[in-house]
Amino acid sequence: MENPWDKLRSYAQKRERLIVGLMSGTSADGVDAVIAQVSGSRRDTKVSLRKFITFGMPRRLRERILMLSHGEGDAQLVSHVNVEIGSLFADAVETVLIEGGISISSIDAIASHGQTIAHSPELAATLQIGEPSILAQRFGVPVVSDFRSADMSAGGQGAPLVPYADWCLLTHPTKTRAIQNIGGIANVTYLPADAPPESVLGFDTGPGNMLIDLAAEYASDGAETFDRDGMLASTGEIHHDLLAWLLNHPWIVQPPPKSAGRAEFGRSLWHELLRIYGDAAIEDLTATVTAFTALSIADAYDRFLPTPPDQIVIGGGGVRNKTLMAILRKQFGEEKVITHENLEDPLDSDAKEAIAFAILANETLLGNPSNLPSVTGARAPVILGKVTPGNY
Amino acid sequence: MENPWDKLRSYAQKRERLIVGLMSGTSADGVDAVIAQVSGSRRDTKVSLRKFITFGMPRRLRERILMLSHGEGDAQLVSHVNVEIGSLFADAVETVLIEGGISISSIDAIASHGQTIAHSPELAATLQIGEPSILAQRFGVPVVSDFRSADMSAGGQGAPLVPYADWCLLTHPTKTRAIQNIGGIANVTYLPADAPPESVLGFDTGPGNMLIDLAAEYASDGAETFDRDGMLASTGEIHHDLLAWLLNHPWIVQPPPKSAGRAEFGRSLWHELLRIYGDAAIEDLTATVTAFTALSIADAYDRFLPTPPDQIVIGGGGVRNKTLMAILRKQFGEEKVITHENLEDPLDSDAKEAIAFAILANETLLGNPSNLPSVTGARAPVILGKVTPGNY
Repeated sequence: MENPWDKLRSYAQKRERLIVGLMSGTSADGVDAVIAQVSGSRRDTKVSLRKFITFGMPRRLRERILMLSHGEGDAQLVSHVNVEIGSLFADAVETVLIEGGISISSIDAIASHGQTIAHSPELAATLQIGEPSILAQRFGVPVVSDFRSADMSAGGQGAPLVPYADWCLLTHPTKTRAIQNIGGIANVTYLPADAPPESVLGFDTGPGNMLIDLAAEYASDGAETFDRDGMLASTGEIHHDLLAWLLNHPWIVQPPPKSAGRAEFGRSLWHELLRIYGDAAIEDLTATVTAFTALSIADAYDRFLPTPPDQIVIGGGGVRNKTLMAILRKQFGEEKVITHENLEDPLDSDAKEAIAFAILANETLLGNPSNLPSVTGARAPVILGKVTPGNY
Repeated sequence: MENPWDKLRSYAQKRERLIVGLMSGTSADGVDAVIAQVSGSRRDTKVSLRKFITFGMPRRLRERILMLSHGEGDAQLVSHVNVEIGSLFADAVETVLIEGGISISSIDAIASHGQTIAHSPELAATLQIGEPSILAQRFGVPVVSDFRSADMSAGGQGAPLVPYADWCLLTHPTKTRAIQNIGGIANVTYLPADAPPESVLGFDTGPGNMLIDLAAEYASDGAETFDRDGMLASTGEIHHDLLAWLLNHPWIVQPPPKSAGRAEFGRSLWHELLRIYGDAAIEDLTATVTAFTALSIADAYDRFLPTPPDQIVIGGGGVRNKTLMAILRKQFGEEKVITHENLEDPLDSDAKEAIAFAILANETLLGNPSNLPSVTGARAPVILGKVTPGNY
């Protein structure tokens, strides 16, 4: 059989490559698996999504992952869960192949972000688990994994990495774009028109759906986990004192690189909010945290982007919140705000992260760097990841 | 600059390669670093040792490693110590380069075994830490690491891996050899004359210096950590009841694959021994555990090797115990027992493990498998390790 390193030469010469991308977020509620058809590289990258599934995370495994993330469990457990997640990833790959009707023999590589169980950028330390050897042995193709360590060893934060994929796919020849993702937390990739890589910026803008979800949960006594279509917010009025109080959050003015999480915009902020403003109607509180979410995005652009974007491309679950989208449209101007689905080559924005790691793996296998020092703070562009060879 | 994957083609075409090998054992008392000049591959492999150092392990880091190995400390600590060990490895590489008078620009690759902090073959789980990205970023060369996972994903125990290097370097055209290492634990690689890889065997034979060290420590009230030259044992008589009791240890008759450690031949066995035979003179106890060490090797050969070896090549600290060597010579016949230093191309046997991983990395970078299924129990030969690319 062909030597796996020689095979990388044929990889480079192929016009199109099929890459399985795997991503499991910190909430550990499922594994996103995509089959991405990738051609070219860097700004010539083209992707078409052949299949996307979210593969269920067994409850017991999720509990063990959350244990590890919260500082319970020892090195033995890390090693055991590493194998369990590796096997789960392998099952996810098998399933996406079957559901996509694609044979493993046509797959060129697997990109596996892994499950983050520790991340301390101040110590250049991170830990993504899900043993890649299990994938390499089961499927016989090279596996690219552990994308964050190289950037951190080069002085970067190891995050965010998705802006590189945004740069590849969404840089516009004449328009400056903000690619705004609204998940639990909201983050932006700033792409100047015809951007060279060193002009890209990327950082968290603040809360995404996190506070809105908490409001919806509170309003329904735990029956709802999110404000469907922004309905609840649409029935309330903005509480201006509360909005001012929220916009005064010290994280908001902190310059990038910065990242937010539950520590900043989670349950403890919500409880503090209730303590001070709990007399207001829950509809009003919901309307206000929804406005805060939109305004914190606009505020971040004003403060930290060198020029206002010509176009804002929104993705993530927040797109489905009509109230949130209405405020964003009002804030930025109706014509500037679009969603991923409005793009010329639309990609399912739920699949975006898994696709992004397929794009990063493509660069690694071509020998190209794929961190963005202007985004992560690294000293230099470096090749990301480790390659576990497939069968010989 | 040249693409790192294209560079692997030049690597394959080179007549000689310089590989830094790094090994830190489970006792975590220092990092062995070698510069190995390697040519060829598989049974044509030739190695010359250009430099060997043992780089000190800072006490605080050693304590953290032992904590992790003993089930204390969480995933965060694993990620932090991963970075600390990676940095220590980088310092060890710098030092071996300086002391060897060799420039990094002439180094082709780094082979890093890593620090084992968890190993559960029954769950196919293992964890070797020491972040390879730190080495790849600091030195710009490819780093091969995590050698055990691929074998375990292929159904093997992930150990022992050194027999592959023994096979490469020490297979004799006409003599069947036993390569007997006597460290804390003793292990053997069985190499039939002109051996094809599938005929190699390798397993632990039982205690190495472990029980002898405990006897020396007991005799000196903790002042000595080992029986220098086997002096203490040489003044005692063998206690035949005790010897029979030791040879009756249930581990001894267990067929390979098997591995031994402190659990089998450590302090708890020593205390049990003292409880039953503590009335005997300590010189006699020392003579007896020394005889047991030698006889457990002979016993393992009788039980588990298909043919008696024509030659036994002894390495490890046990070589310096003259009493132990005398018993082995008597047991096997004077002419059959030699040491690594007696070989035609002698290699420092203290540097052997670090050299072995340089040899394994060489195979990985050439696209060759380097586990031995007959030794590890894997379903098939597989390419070991993960490759972290250097600079582009």
